[in-house]
Amino acid sequence: MASFMEKLESASLDNRSLLCVGLDPDPRQMPVSDLFEFNRAIIDATADLVCAYKPNLSFYEAQGIPGLEALKRTVEYIHSTAARVPVIGDAKRGELGPSAESYAKAMFDVWGFDAITANAWGGRESLQPFFDREDKGVFVWCRSSNNGAGDIQDLPVATRDGQRPVFELLAEMALGWNGNGNVGLVIGATYPLEMKKVRDGCPDMPFLIPGVGAQGGALEESVRCGANSDGRMAIVSSSRGVLYASGGSDYAQAARQAALVLREQMNAVLEQEGKGWS
Amino acid sequence: MASFMEKLESASLDNRSLLCVGLDPDPRQMPVSDLFEFNRAIIDATADLVCAYKPNLSFYEAQGIPGLEALKRTVEYIHSTAARVPVIGDAKRGELGPSAESYAKAMFDVWGFDAITANAWGGRESLQPFFDREDKGVFVWCRSSNNGAGDIQDLPVATRDGQRPVFELLAEMALGWNGNGNVGLVIGATYPLEMKKVRDGCPDMPFLIPGVGAQGGALEESVRCGANSDGRMAIVSSSRGVLYASGGSDYAQAARQAALVLREQMNAVLEQEGKGWS
Repeated sequence: MASFMEKLESASLDNRSLLCVGLDPDPRQMPVSDLFEFNRAIIDATADLVCAYKPNLSFYEAQGIPGLEALKRTVEYIHSTAARVPVIGDAKRGELGPSAESYAKAMFDVWGFDAITANAWGGRESLQPFFDREDKGVFVWCRSSNNGAGDIQDLPVATRDGQRPVFELLAEMALGWNGNGNVGLVIGATYPLEMKKVRDGCPDMPFLIPGVGAQGGALEESVRCGANSDGRMAIVSSSRGVLYASGGSDYAQAARQAALVLREQMNAVLEQEGKGWS
Repeated sequence: MASFMEKLESASLDNRSLLCVGLDPDPRQMPVSDLFEFNRAIIDATADLVCAYKPNLSFYEAQGIPGLEALKRTVEYIHSTAARVPVIGDAKRGELGPSAESYAKAMFDVWGFDAITANAWGGRESLQPFFDREDKGVFVWCRSSNNGAGDIQDLPVATRDGQRPVFELLAEMALGWNGNGNVGLVIGATYPLEMKKVRDGCPDMPFLIPGVGAQGGALEESVRCGANSDGRMAIVSSSRGVLYASGGSDYAQAARQAALVLREQMNAVLEQEGKGWS
């Protein structure tokens, strides 16, 4: 079976896309009531336009067992009908010892994700069971797109090179944790200059960039600052802007249209920089 | 319905106990195969000895939908047969915006926890939907019991008062987040001196102290350094040391015996310090 990194590269190239669609079904906004049916329509409408899908687990857990059954069916559906497209479980898990091992089992063996997001608060050893799964991707949550994220992430750490924010040091640590070549970073779209700095330090890692659209992130800047020198390895994620482009029965067509626009806007940036797909 | 803090205080007093049992069913160690049946036997054997139960969600997620059904039944069973004892969902969730709200709904409305553990990497606003539930407890993961936790938690932050580790600043922030009086801290048992320092700064907050037993934490020191000036508000959690005290069919009796010993060891410390239950 292809590793996450292989799947990511081939889906990006096949679909000429840096776009990831966040599968965050919210009953308050969905025009249909069934989570899986909603996701299936979105997937059918966008599978040729994306480099990845990213279900955020909170939306499924909020619906209890039926929600988690819908999550399982959704991942299986992508693996069977859009098998080239990797699925990133946006779980932000982080735990210690046997609990960390249990989460690795849950994320990769139970839910079947190709990659996950993880929270590094517990340090390297808390994520090691994830890193050890060489064929899976692990996106370490580094810098958020919310305004208040700086409470911890921006604390100024005293270093030999002067004061540096915690998230920059975490990005450096993640480089050292990447012995299997399967580590990436989550970097919010609302801070492109910070993203650029982290990209300079981590030239080859995949960056998962949420916050495009509803959270006000700058799409073009995310591509410019987040992609690597070849214009690749940026996974720019949009959820609400695609899923709820229409609140009516045409929601799947509207989602496709929104995804097309996002993909083309990003590809235009790549073209400008001489890093297009052809 | 009683708030988490009320339940915690009355369960502690009724059972004369600072002991929390971590309900972490691990198929590799369980003498029976059914998660719920295992938990039920442990609960029946210990409900008069504990101040709280703490299921860690990773163990249930690792068993997929059947595991999560066992989690739901376990919480319901405690609420119905040991209704005085609060249930802390050891979830370490932390998310942004609508995802944070979805996790609040999942933790408190779907699973029915009285309190949860949370990860503050995303800052205050990432936990606000938890804090807003005034009747529920929120334990912010502050300092871990694992050796490698210092990767982030111990980074030296430059402050007006000199360099201070990140986790100390987080503890101070948590004080400011405690407008509803429902915030606590998770502090590992293996660092009693650090715990004492945090306790001095947060004299009234409940501390959830994992790592007693299998992780090598010092039980007596945890009580001495973690309890407040009245000898209360320390929730000292043991999982493997209680659950797997025996690998045979007498596991429930052995769990009771292990819990009795732990409770008495802690109560002896309280007595020594003139802070006993009578």
